[in-house]
Amino acid sequence: MTKILIVGGVAGGASAAARARRLSEDAEIIMFERGPFVSFANCGLPYHIGGDIQERDKLLLQTPESFLARFNVNVRVMNEVTAINRDAKSVTVTNLLDGSQYSESYDFLLLSPGASPIVPPIEGIDDPLVSPLVHSLRNIPDMDRILSVLQTKQVKHATVVGGGFIGLEMMEAFHQRGINTTLLELSDQVMGPVDREMAGFVHAEIKQKGIDLRLGVGLVGISVSESNTLNLMLSDDSQFETDLLIMAIGVKPENTLAKEAGLTLGATGGIWTSPTLQTSDPAIYAVGDAIEEADFVTGQPTLVPLAGPANRQGRMAANNMLANSDGELETYQGTQGTAICKVFDLAIASTGKNEKQLKRDNIDFEKVYVHTASHASYYPGAETVSLKLLFSPSDGKILGAQAAGKDGVDKRIDVLAVAQRAGMTVDQLQHLELTYAPPYGSAKDVVNQAAFVASNLIKGDLKAIHFDEITNLSDDQILLDVRNPNELTNNGFIKGAINIPVDQLRQRMSELPKDKEIIIYCQVGLRGNVAYRQLVNNGYSAKNLIGGYRTYLFANA
Amino acid sequence: MTKILIVGGVAGGASAAARARRLSEDAEIIMFERGPFVSFANCGLPYHIGGDIQERDKLLLQTPESFLARFNVNVRVMNEVTAINRDAKSVTVTNLLDGSQYSESYDFLLLSPGASPIVPPIEGIDDPLVSPLVHSLRNIPDMDRILSVLQTKQVKHATVVGGGFIGLEMMEAFHQRGINTTLLELSDQVMGPVDREMAGFVHAEIKQKGIDLRLGVGLVGISVSESNTLNLMLSDDSQFETDLLIMAIGVKPENTLAKEAGLTLGATGGIWTSPTLQTSDPAIYAVGDAIEEADFVTGQPTLVPLAGPANRQGRMAANNMLANSDGELETYQGTQGTAICKVFDLAIASTGKNEKQLKRDNIDFEKVYVHTASHASYYPGAETVSLKLLFSPSDGKILGAQAAGKDGVDKRIDVLAVAQRAGMTVDQLQHLELTYAPPYGSAKDVVNQAAFVASNLIKGDLKAIHFDEITNLSDDQILLDVRNPNELTNNGFIKGAINIPVDQLRQRMSELPKDKEIIIYCQVGLRGNVAYRQLVNNGYSAKNLIGGYRTYLFANA
Repeated sequence: MTKILIVGGVAGGASAAARARRLSEDAEIIMFERGPFVSFANCGLPYHIGGDIQERDKLLLQTPESFLARFNVNVRVMNEVTAINRDAKSVTVTNLLDGSQYSESYDFLLLSPGASPIVPPIEGIDDPLVSPLVHSLRNIPDMDRILSVLQTKQVKHATVVGGGFIGLEMMEAFHQRGINTTLLELSDQVMGPVDREMAGFVHAEIKQKGIDLRLGVGLVGISVSESNTLNLMLSDDSQFETDLLIMAIGVKPENTLAKEAGLTLGATGGIWTSPTLQTSDPAIYAVGDAIEEADFVTGQPTLVPLAGPANRQGRMAANNMLANSDGELETYQGTQGTAICKVFDLAIASTGKNEKQLKRDNIDFEKVYVHTASHASYYPGAETVSLKLLFSPSDGKILGAQAAGKDGVDKRIDVLAVAQRAGMTVDQLQHLELTYAPPYGSAKDVVNQAAFVASNLIKGDLKAIHFDEITNLSDDQILLDVRNPNELTNNGFIKGAINIPVDQLRQRMSELPKDKEIIIYCQVGLRGNVAYRQLVNNGYSAKNLIGGYRTYLFANA
Repeated sequence: MTKILIVGGVAGGASAAARARRLSEDAEIIMFERGPFVSFANCGLPYHIGGDIQERDKLLLQTPESFLARFNVNVRVMNEVTAINRDAKSVTVTNLLDGSQYSESYDFLLLSPGASPIVPPIEGIDDPLVSPLVHSLRNIPDMDRILSVLQTKQVKHATVVGGGFIGLEMMEAFHQRGINTTLLELSDQVMGPVDREMAGFVHAEIKQKGIDLRLGVGLVGISVSESNTLNLMLSDDSQFETDLLIMAIGVKPENTLAKEAGLTLGATGGIWTSPTLQTSDPAIYAVGDAIEEADFVTGQPTLVPLAGPANRQGRMAANNMLANSDGELETYQGTQGTAICKVFDLAIASTGKNEKQLKRDNIDFEKVYVHTASHASYYPGAETVSLKLLFSPSDGKILGAQAAGKDGVDKRIDVLAVAQRAGMTVDQLQHLELTYAPPYGSAKDVVNQAAFVASNLIKGDLKAIHFDEITNLSDDQILLDVRNPNELTNNGFIKGAINIPVDQLRQRMSELPKDKEIIIYCQVGLRGNVAYRQLVNNGYSAKNLIGGYRTYLFANA
């Protein structure tokens, strides 16, 4: 009879427990959770605070009782595993309700302790008058504490530090409750997984909703005023008062238990695991936010604190713990880091590597931007999907993708996540046959369109210029706007551009000098490509602004 | 200078013309269209009739003038190519406005004539009093004629013959206009691309909206009553009166021109093309609804009258016509037939082969059904996605997929269409990393879930029984419903089942006989699997109803 102990009762741990029982009726399975809840919907917490999810009970997916009834799993909440005795194959457990300690033996141990919020050493943050007003959000008690403040105190202004998933979701939650909200982000963009110019779509949305967005500033000090509000001091020497502060600058793997047990940690601080999800001690598995994973593109170690991988890893660890002794163990196939975040009406999503990472890792890449309707533009409800596709210029392999928009963003990133995982090239993306009817897509989908542009670049049918190069033109270059004059008036234009609408270009081509390079742009890049081909086929030297004026405009938002 | 003639000015032809010009500024490009419009949104026609697309102008994507201005393409509407003179490399054209004939030479000819509605020899259909009230819908004039009837005549009742894409869309359009509508379909299901049991979701939706759906009956005779309504006689000897009749039983490739020119036709009646989209005469290319394509799964010839392939084929044909003489031509990669249709609030979609085709072609397959929330069920707006996945039991390769539901159907079929095209197996599908946040998906997506079940089947961790086998059990089998008693009361149950809720099964297992096979079912298959594993791990012989009661229920709708 196999005895399995599981540390942590949420995504990875709960998945592993349920799967282990399905595989073996006679295994003994004990799941320890130091908090009061197991298997809660941690991704739903901000939405309960904001009011989208009205019933708190909906967040409690399973209880110790339901786990016992369905899966015969012994769930011990408020029980913290404080030490692993690897030689004895046992753990030391503290019952947090009465302080008692006991020991429990194992055949296999699964570590799924998750990650904890990073709280930087900000001046005043440990002040006993300050700390009750400083919150993070990782679990139900965290959520209850925030709700309690909102219910008992008049919160007119809230501040969120950190523009990642939880920071953005909490910002929206406060806004939905009618609270004036400031979002502080130390870097020059929110949503680190996407590149700066794609984050511009989020910045525009956030500002449009009336959020006080402050980029490039850090929180350096906190004090309490007489009226019991917090006074925040920022790195730019400004300060302001706020009633409630959320620290959401990121998480770090919970590695204490593993470290003290002498298990190998990775350079990232995550618990090292083999592809079979075993730690350096083969009787101990580890999954989820606490572990270091292999990046799908580079194979390099990385941290991916996301629910999807945690759930699937838990399932796989159970398979491996209960595999026949002569059976082959399953291996984890690396993590693309596919992620999405709702920011008011906008979705922002990504998969694979972003440009910042590719540059840092010295990986050769090319990129395209397209802005295409989420479905046939003549059918009601179409919204623009703004897509960035990163690919290898040598073999056309997909390196990463990012998208922003109000409809169909999840679908396009999912399509590209599958294509990337399958090792597809941009040439193959051209042939993708995706569902098309006017309410759902277009005969040439956003993804096909991006692949056409990428393929044109690889074949040399198109020469690209990008949004960050277009304002530093040399004397040998001329900037040509091929949109209609009313578009320049209504949408703005890039300084110094001359305007010849694409439909007049054949007639007016002689207005352009043949001894200069023509830098073309239109609204999204499509008409620019038509103009580019006309000019090049007529002997001009030219480049087209990929993604057009729209990419340029939002890159600066 | 290359001279290109294009026959047909809609999807494939228009795409080819625009692409050809981008590739070559000095090619001479003439596009013939026998109708009055080019590049119109044929997929949008039913939605203008129904009122979703209010402005008729939105359907006219390009005009001859706009094509000339932007692409320098000579567009000749109301000009029909009536003969190809292959030796002379010229075509004969009739100007339909004045009846004059002329000839035009070519270097390359592209045939994109589309498909025409099949009108069966029904008694009375050619009666001059009948035919003005009998319509099909392929182009703008067809649409205008239908709208004219609706505007000038009091249409209280309309009848649509044929439950394919256009038939379903026209049914919905009439319903939206407040017209009582009958849908006649000769086979036992609408939406031929999906299997009968998946069409059940559509049948339920159609009936729920008050449509008079009649399956398994054909239209055999039409006559006109004195009040100028049509009297329809059906194959089941019933008859009824209707004010307006739409024939939408399917289309056939427009092959007359190709046939008369001696070009090879396929067994399907479509124009034969090589993978480079050349006909049996290499100077003549053909694309779109008129050609026979290679099926992606079987490689067998097939007809796929869909807009997506037509558009991409047009682009590819242009690339090949204008490729360097020493360059390699692009090849068309086969068609999966990925398709989707909106039916009221429901989407129904498919890709690859369906079970009917696999059986016909003697291809070995296994299948699973899952019914999973389109996004985290605790977040508002989640709808059930009902997914059928067909795969090879030997290597796990995806053979086809079908889905129905009110949210997220297009996304799941797109994901599976990409995975199929990439040659992925169900084992690999388990590892897919798709976008997850509560408003968009689940940590274990519908597709992951289907892959888990499929993988369990392949590994032998699960024995399946299917919806059509569960009512013919032998005396050695026992039917076990593991849902809660209130679910049986509220949702119904399968006759003869005994009920032990899954959470009581461990305690009550002794109530089950060990010498019989336990046939388990729950609502969607998930709890059934938990029960299955319990029973099998306790020495019972068992099978689980894949997709549960929900699959069984809608299969009979």
